[in-house]
Amino acid sequence: MPSTPQSQNGHVSLLSASCPTPLAEYAEIVLAHGSGGRMSQRLIREAILPGFSNESLAALHDGAIIGCGNGRLAFTTDSYVVSPLFFPGGDIGELAVNGTVNDLAMCGARPLCLSVGFILEEGLPMADFRRVIASMRRAADAVGVSLVTGDTKVVDRGKADRLFVNVSGLGIMPDGVEIDPRRAQPGDAVLLSGAIGAHGIAILSVREGLEFECPIVSDTAPLNGMVAALLASGCHPRILRDPTRGGVASALTEIAESAGVGMLLDETAIPVDEAVRGACEILGLDPLHVANEGKMIAIVPAAEAPRALEALRGHPLGRQAAIIGEVTSGHSGFVMMRTHVGGTRVVDMLSGEQLPRIC
Amino acid sequence: MPSTPQSQNGHVSLLSASCPTPLAEYAEIVLAHGSGGRMSQRLIREAILPGFSNESLAALHDGAIIGCGNGRLAFTTDSYVVSPLFFPGGDIGELAVNGTVNDLAMCGARPLCLSVGFILEEGLPMADFRRVIASMRRAADAVGVSLVTGDTKVVDRGKADRLFVNVSGLGIMPDGVEIDPRRAQPGDAVLLSGAIGAHGIAILSVREGLEFECPIVSDTAPLNGMVAALLASGCHPRILRDPTRGGVASALTEIAESAGVGMLLDETAIPVDEAVRGACEILGLDPLHVANEGKMIAIVPAAEAPRALEALRGHPLGRQAAIIGEVTSGHSGFVMMRTHVGGTRVVDMLSGEQLPRIC
Repeated sequence: MPSTPQSQNGHVSLLSASCPTPLAEYAEIVLAHGSGGRMSQRLIREAILPGFSNESLAALHDGAIIGCGNGRLAFTTDSYVVSPLFFPGGDIGELAVNGTVNDLAMCGARPLCLSVGFILEEGLPMADFRRVIASMRRAADAVGVSLVTGDTKVVDRGKADRLFVNVSGLGIMPDGVEIDPRRAQPGDAVLLSGAIGAHGIAILSVREGLEFECPIVSDTAPLNGMVAALLASGCHPRILRDPTRGGVASALTEIAESAGVGMLLDETAIPVDEAVRGACEILGLDPLHVANEGKMIAIVPAAEAPRALEALRGHPLGRQAAIIGEVTSGHSGFVMMRTHVGGTRVVDMLSGEQLPRIC
Repeated sequence: MPSTPQSQNGHVSLLSASCPTPLAEYAEIVLAHGSGGRMSQRLIREAILPGFSNESLAALHDGAIIGCGNGRLAFTTDSYVVSPLFFPGGDIGELAVNGTVNDLAMCGARPLCLSVGFILEEGLPMADFRRVIASMRRAADAVGVSLVTGDTKVVDRGKADRLFVNVSGLGIMPDGVEIDPRRAQPGDAVLLSGAIGAHGIAILSVREGLEFECPIVSDTAPLNGMVAALLASGCHPRILRDPTRGGVASALTEIAESAGVGMLLDETAIPVDEAVRGACEILGLDPLHVANEGKMIAIVPAAEAPRALEALRGHPLGRQAAIIGEVTSGHSGFVMMRTHVGGTRVVDMLSGEQLPRIC
C-alpha cells in the first residue's frame, strides 16, 4: 500500500504526491500496470495513447461518443480477469455485464446492447462456464440489455486462468447530455452514491481466506437506473465516474488532472460501512483506494447539488448518497481532504498495486 | 486431423459426416471447443445460445445488425490469442485489427471505429507491447478506422500467455445491403477471393520450426476494400464470410446448415498455392480446413456471378478469385465436392482441433 503524505499544521507539500518510476524504465509489464492507479495511467498515457492518438481516446473517458445519424452513441470495452471467478456477492459474469453497463451509464448513455468475448482455458469445468453464462443472462435481463454478438477462444492449459471475458457495449446518448472528465469547474459539488470499498474487500477476503464477523459482499450492480433518475431530476451532471480499480482516490485524482482543477473532500462525509472500515484497518488499506463495482461519483453544478442528492437517495442503490466535497480552483490537479481530526492531506492516486485482478 | 469420408463410384454416405460427442458428455472445456469447427459450433449452440438467446445471436453471423435512427450499424467482437505473437507475415496486433474489420466487412458494413481490450501477462517485454501497439495503429490507419476506446488488464505471471487482445468494432451498413448466412438459394454461385491456407500454415511452420523452400507467410489483410468494390459493381451478395478458424470447409458447411441448402464444389477450381499444397501434403492437412485471414467467400445470385468475379479480380487482394461451386437444393445441410479425380466427397466441418490458437 502506498504511503499518503500527511499534512503538518494544515500544510501539505504537493511535491510529496507519488511520482513512480517513468514507464521508460520498465523493460517488462508488471502487475501495477493494471492497478487502475498511477502506473496504469502512465502505461496508457506513455505507451498506448501515442500509438492510438485520437480525440476520443485522449479524453480518457469510460467510453467513446460517436455521432450516428442525428444521434450519438456511446461505445465502450472492458476485459474481466477477476480471480476467483465466483466471490461473495457475485461472479465474473455478473461483474462483466454490470461493469460494461456502468461504463456506458458513466457516459450518460442508455445501454443498448453488449458483445461477449470469452477466452477459456482448456480444462475449465463446463459447469462453471454454464454458471457464468447464466449469470450474465440474468444480469443482462435485469438491465434490459441484449447480448447480441460473441466470440469464444480456447487456450491450452496453463496459458490462461480458467475464464477471461471481454464485454463491449453500445449505448444511446440522450440529447443534451454532455459528460466529460474535463468539464469539472470550481464550485461544483462532488457526490458519491454510497458506501465504498465493499467489492475490493470481498475479493480480498475470499482470496486470502479471511473471515469477518459480518461477511462483506461485492457491491456489483448496474448503475444505469440511478443515472436515469439523476438525469430525470433535471440535473446536468458534468462528470459521472464509477470508482472501480484504484478506488475513489484514483478516480477523483484523474478527473482533477484532466480538468485542471483541485478538489477538497470532507473525510467525515465519505460513507464507509463499519465492516469495510474495520477490514481496511486490519489490512492496512485506505478505503479510498479500494475498488467499488456499484458506486458512482457525480460532479454537478453547485446549484443542482441538493436536487442531485435527492435523486440519488431516491434510488435503491443510492440511499447512502452524500455530498463529499467540492471542486476548487486552487491545488490544480490535486485532491485534498480535510481529515476527521481536522488536518488536510493529499489524496493521491493508487501508486503501486494493491490488489491485482479485482475485476 | 479428421478423416473425410471418400466417395466410392460417386456414392457418398451423408451419415458418414462427423458427429462428435454431444456437448453434455464433456465435463470440461477442451481445445477443440475453440477450433472453429464442429465442436465450437456445438459449444455455441448448446451452451452459449440457450443462455443468451435472441434474434441477432441466433443468426450466428460475424456480427449483429442494430437499428440506429434511420440507419443500421454492424457490431462485432473478437478476442485474439494467436501464438506466437509475431509470425511470418504479421503479428497479433495487425491480425486483430484486420480480423475485426473483416467481421464488419462480412456483414456488408463500412468499418467506423474499434475498441481495444488488452490482457497482459506480468513479464511481457515492454518492447513487444509497443511493437503490437504500433502494428495495430498501422493496420487501423491502412483501413482508415479509429481505435476510439480501450481497456488494459494485467494478470500475474503464468496466468495468461504474454498478450491477448479483444477488438470489438462498429460499422455502418449501407442502405439496401442484406447479408445473412440464411439467405443462400439453390443456383447461387459460390466465389472464393483467393488461394487458401496461407495463415494456418504460416503459424504452424513457425510454431513447429518447419522450414519450406519458399517461406509461407500469413495472408492477414483487411477485406473491407474488396467488399466495397463488390458492392460498387452492383452485385447483391447474399452471404459474405471470411473462412478463418476451421477453414473454407467449416464456413461453407455452417452456411449450408443455416440456410438449409446443399453445395457442390469443384476441387479443381479452388485456388491453392503450390507451397501451401505441398506443406499440407507433408503435414497431412486438408487445405479446406486450414485458416485464412485475408480471404473471402461470396455467395451471389447466379446471374451476378460474372460481375462479382470481375469485381473481386479487379481488387489487389482478389487477383486469384474463382467461382468454386454452386448452391444446390439436394443434400440439404451438406457440402459436396467433385474431386480432381472425378469422384464426389463430403466436405465436412473440422471436427476436432487441427491447430489451436491460430488467431
